Amino acid sequence: MKQYTVAILGATGAVGTQMLECLNEQEFPVGKLKLLASARSAGKTVEFRGEQIVIEEACPEAFEGCDIVLGAAGDDIAKELLPEAVKRGAVVVDNSHAFRMDPEVPLVVPEINADDIKWHHGLIANPNCATIIGLVPTWPLHQLAGVKRMIVSTYQAASGAGAPGMAELEAQLAALGRGEEIPEPRAFAAQLASNLIPQIGGVKEEGFTSEEMKLQNEGRKIMHLPELRVNCTCVRVPVLRSHSESITLEFERDITAEEARVALAAAPGVKLVDDMSAEDAHERFPMPMDTSDQDLIWVGRVRRDISNPEAARGITFWCCGDQIRKGAATNAVQIAKLLCE
Amino acid sequence: MKQYTVAILGATGAVGTQMLECLNEQEFPVGKLKLLASARSAGKTVEFRGEQIVIEEACPEAFEGCDIVLGAAGDDIAKELLPEAVKRGAVVVDNSHAFRMDPEVPLVVPEINADDIKWHHGLIANPNCATIIGLVPTWPLHQLAGVKRMIVSTYQAASGAGAPGMAELEAQLAALGRGEEIPEPRAFAAQLASNLIPQIGGVKEEGFTSEEMKLQNEGRKIMHLPELRVNCTCVRVPVLRSHSESITLEFERDITAEEARVALAAAPGVKLVDDMSAEDAHERFPMPMDTSDQDLIWVGRVRRDISNPEAARGITFWCCGDQIRKGAATNAVQIAKLLCE
Repeated sequence: MKQYTVAILGATGAVGTQMLECLNEQEFPVGKLKLLASARSAGKTVEFRGEQIVIEEACPEAFEGCDIVLGAAGDDIAKELLPEAVKRGAVVVDNSHAFRMDPEVPLVVPEINADDIKWHHGLIANPNCATIIGLVPTWPLHQLAGVKRMIVSTYQAASGAGAPGMAELEAQLAALGRGEEIPEPRAFAAQLASNLIPQIGGVKEEGFTSEEMKLQNEGRKIMHLPELRVNCTCVRVPVLRSHSESITLEFERDITAEEARVALAAAPGVKLVDDMSAEDAHERFPMPMDTSDQDLIWVGRVRRDISNPEAARGITFWCCGDQIRKGAATNAVQIAKLLCE
Repeated sequence: MKQYTVAILGATGAVGTQMLECLNEQEFPVGKLKLLASARSAGKTVEFRGEQIVIEEACPEAFEGCDIVLGAAGDDIAKELLPEAVKRGAVVVDNSHAFRMDPEVPLVVPEINADDIKWHHGLIANPNCATIIGLVPTWPLHQLAGVKRMIVSTYQAASGAGAPGMAELEAQLAALGRGEEIPEPRAFAAQLASNLIPQIGGVKEEGFTSEEMKLQNEGRKIMHLPELRVNCTCVRVPVLRSHSESITLEFERDITAEEARVALAAAPGVKLVDDMSAEDAHERFPMPMDTSDQDLIWVGRVRRDISNPEAARGITFWCCGDQIRKGAATNAVQIAKLLCE
C-alpha cells in the first residue's frame, strides 16, 4: 500500500491535535508526518505512532515533498501558505473559511458529495462545523423529499472558538464552582458560563452573522441546491465540545416522520437516538454530553412540523455532533482518505 | 384606597417567594396577607413589609375571608384547593397548568389580553413561562402584520423546574468547578451542567412534548387566534433563571425588520436591545445573565426571515426574560392588580 507524506498546518491547535488523532484512528497510510505551527511551537515534540515528531515552523519550503496537507490554521495563514503547498505538488484539505466559497475549490462532506473531490485543483475545503453537523442528517431527508427551506437554531459549544474558548469556559466554570469572581472574558464577547451568547461571527447581510450565513452559502454548494433558503440563528452555549441544532425542514414532496426516521437510521454518519418511550434519557434523544469525542451525528426528536401549512411537507428534528471531530478534523481526514483511494 | 386580603398558595416555592416580592414592588394594596404551604413549612415565619407572617397549612378553610388568592402550587394541589377558594368568594390567579385550557377560565398576559380578565368566574390562569416570554414580543408584531405561524426553539433555564432545579444545577456547577464527581441528577433526567436536555414535559401528540404544545394551545387562546400554528422545540440549558427563545414568525401581511424594531421598541413589557454595531456585547443583544431578576422581555437580533418564500412576510428574533418573574410571579401579580382597578 502506498504511503503518503502528510503535513498538518496548525498542528498544535484543537483541530490540528484532533487531526493527528484521526489520522491514527482512521489508519491513514502515513509514510512521513510533518507538523507545522508558529515559531512559538517550533522545536517541541509530539508523539505519533510511537515516534517523536519535532514541530517545524510553517513556511513555504516546509511543504516540499508533501503529498497531502491538512490545514487547521486561521483564514489569513491559510491564504498565505496553502497555495505554496499546492504549488509544490501537494493536495490540500483546508479547514479554514478562506477557500470554501471559491468556485475552483470543492467543498466536501464525504457522506453527501464525495464525488466533488474529483474535480479539485489542488485544494479541497472542509465546511464550517455547524454546516457539517446540520447537513449530514438533512441530506438523507433531502434525497427522500427534496429540501427547499431550512430554519435552524444552533446551540454551539465553546470549542468552536478553539482551545482558548474551551479553556475560558472551563476557567469560568471553575471560578463559579468555587464561588470566586469570574475572570474577564477574552475568547468570547461576554461570560459564557451560566449564560448564552446569541452572536457568532461578524454581522453580514440583513443582520445575519457570518456564521449564520455559512449554513445557506455552504449548504447550497455542498448539496448542489443553488435555490436552498436557510434562516439560521447561531447561539453559543456553555457546553464544551458538541454542537447541537434544532432544525425545521420544508420539502418539495411529502414525507412522514416515520419515513424520515427510517432514512436517518440507514444514513451514513448518522446515529438515530429517538425513542421517547425509553426510560433512560440517554436513549431518548441526543445530548452533547453523549456525543462528544466520537464521530457520528446523533439525531432525535424527529417529528412532523405541525406548523407547516402543507401537512406532510415539513420535518423537525434535533441533532448533536462533536465540533472538533466530525465538525472539523474527522471530516478533513475522511476527505484525505478518499484522495488516496 | 381599598385594601385586600391576599393569600399565596405555595408560598415557599421559587414562584411563591417571588410573588411576595412582586406584591411589595408593585405596591399591591395588601391589607392582610396569608401565606399557605404544605404542613412541612407551616409555623415558619416570613417577613413582609416589616411584619412577620406565620406560614399556615393550606386547607379549604384557610381561604375564608380572602379577596385574592395567588396560586403557586402544582397542578394537583391547585385542582384540589383553588375551587375551595373560589367557593369562599375569592378571585384566584393561578400559575399552575390545571385550569389554563378550561374555556370558563381566562388565560391572561396583561400586555396582550387584559380585557379577558373581565369575564372571569372566580379563576384566572397565568400562562406557561415559555408562552409568556415568547408572546409578549410576538404580540406587537401580530398587531402590525397578523401572525399565522411560529417556529420556536427554546433555551430554558433550570428555574423552570423550580427551586430544586436551580439547586441541582448549582450543585453540579460547584462539583464541576471543584473537579468533583457530579451527583446523580434528580430534578432533571440527565446532568444539566455543560449539557443540554432536549425534552421538557411528557410526550404528547406526534412526538411533541407537553411544554412544546403549550405555546400553540395557550398562544391561540391568549391572542384569540384559533388557527395559529406553532412548531416548538423545548430545550433545557445550563442557565439559572432566564429563558431565551429563537423565534421565526410568518405573517398575513408585509412587515420589514425596521417596522418590527419600531413596534418592539414601543411595546409594553418589551426592552429592545438590538444594536449589532455596539462595542459592548451587553448592548448588542439580550443575554440571560442580563435579563435575570427584572420584569421585561428583552428582544434583539431582529431581522427579516430570508428563508420565507414571500420576501417580506417573515421576521426572526431572539428574546430573553426572567422565568420566575415575568414568566410566572410578575405576570400573576399584574393580573391581580388589574382585578383591583
